[in-house]
Amino acid sequence: MNQATAAIIVIGNEILSGKVVDMNSSYLAKELRTLGVALERILVIPDDVDVIAAAVSDYSSRFRWVFTSGGVGPTHDDVTIAGVALALGVRVVRHPLLEEQIQKFSGGKVDEAGLKLAEVPEGAELIYDEGLSFPVLLARNVYILPGIPELFRAKFQALRARFASSPFHLRVVYLRAAETALVPFLNATLRAFPALLLGSYPKWNDPEYHVKVTLESKDAAYVERAFAHLLAQIPPELVVRTE
Amino acid sequence: MNQATAAIIVIGNEILSGKVVDMNSSYLAKELRTLGVALERILVIPDDVDVIAAAVSDYSSRFRWVFTSGGVGPTHDDVTIAGVALALGVRVVRHPLLEEQIQKFSGGKVDEAGLKLAEVPEGAELIYDEGLSFPVLLARNVYILPGIPELFRAKFQALRARFASSPFHLRVVYLRAAETALVPFLNATLRAFPALLLGSYPKWNDPEYHVKVTLESKDAAYVERAFAHLLAQIPPELVVRTE
Repeated sequence: MNQATAAIIVIGNEILSGKVVDMNSSYLAKELRTLGVALERILVIPDDVDVIAAAVSDYSSRFRWVFTSGGVGPTHDDVTIAGVALALGVRVVRHPLLEEQIQKFSGGKVDEAGLKLAEVPEGAELIYDEGLSFPVLLARNVYILPGIPELFRAKFQALRARFASSPFHLRVVYLRAAETALVPFLNATLRAFPALLLGSYPKWNDPEYHVKVTLESKDAAYVERAFAHLLAQIPPELVVRTE
Repeated sequence: MNQATAAIIVIGNEILSGKVVDMNSSYLAKELRTLGVALERILVIPDDVDVIAAAVSDYSSRFRWVFTSGGVGPTHDDVTIAGVALALGVRVVRHPLLEEQIQKFSGGKVDEAGLKLAEVPEGAELIYDEGLSFPVLLARNVYILPGIPELFRAKFQALRARFASSPFHLRVVYLRAAETALVPFLNATLRAFPALLLGSYPKWNDPEYHVKVTLESKDAAYVERAFAHLLAQIPPELVVRTE
């Protein structure tokens, strides 16, 4: 798996029950795109060990990097560590370095609940960074991140450089036309540039434009040629602007 | 499958590539909860017929209702209909009523792209509603909804009454305490009320509270007893307020 692909697994009943809006996956989607990583799945699942294990097992074998969000606190509904361990076929163990850190942090008065924070899937790597008070857990190709958005972002920022890949190059055309009228132009460009990532997105009730067309590839010259090909076909009066 | 369970499949490269933030799944999660429906999965996947088919096939057999969002326009990247048809083992056909409506709408000047909007998985039901200019497609237990948030919401509102189930009853306790300190109380309540849906959500940097605890069940009396049980254990000075 040399390709830079990724999946996000968001773990939390609070998202599925509509109590909390997941902010982490849209944040990470943007970050990964900037880095040149192709995000292939976002999956939101309940706090259930077996469901987590099935998802992690599936995605960790199919995609290069998997990121989990949530379910890593001290309470009964924090079962991500157990789910990842089950997926990878390893035990849950208390990591001596984490235990030491937690003991130190709480002046030696740590109870069982506090020690749950020292649990990891056996063999997990601890990634330390000067910007982090607590390390990130990496189990095989699964980065285990907390659900709290501020912590999720801080941890991802500490990891960010690991995922730098060749970037996607993007061109955008904003149009004032019905999407159906654009189909022949889009299809012609796609026939000439079959490897192009071409998207067409109608906007509802926007005074400026009706459709946003995106052209992307990791090959900058290819995008530029496809962009010119598309613009050469479309009547100029339909084009609002380009980026 | 008598239980009121559901899954949402969001189809769109634009979400995975971070260009657009999905608003439909968080909207639908809230709506379904209000209706008493247990949302079990939210999955975001690319515009890929085989990936769509695999997800629809899996979820439509495991959950009572499946909602798809996106991929139903006239362009090359709109492949949801083909994916759902493949999942259900049926052909894609042009629906005569939709074709007639589209012909009428465009004064008889419909091209191939326009007619793509008349395509359905064979055997799909058209659901008409006075609030909708275009019907909703229902293929077996899969409701096929558009990605544009305004249309997605209008269509779901037209369907809403179909999903009314017995409601969830919710109690909330806001606390000023470290989450680890609450673990013994939460676990004791869960031992006494094993069927309780109990959630614990730390908030970062909130001046009012540190942890929000939610108690839920479809049995209102059960929730009230669990709520009283939990409050009886927690030192009152830790409780900021309850709902």
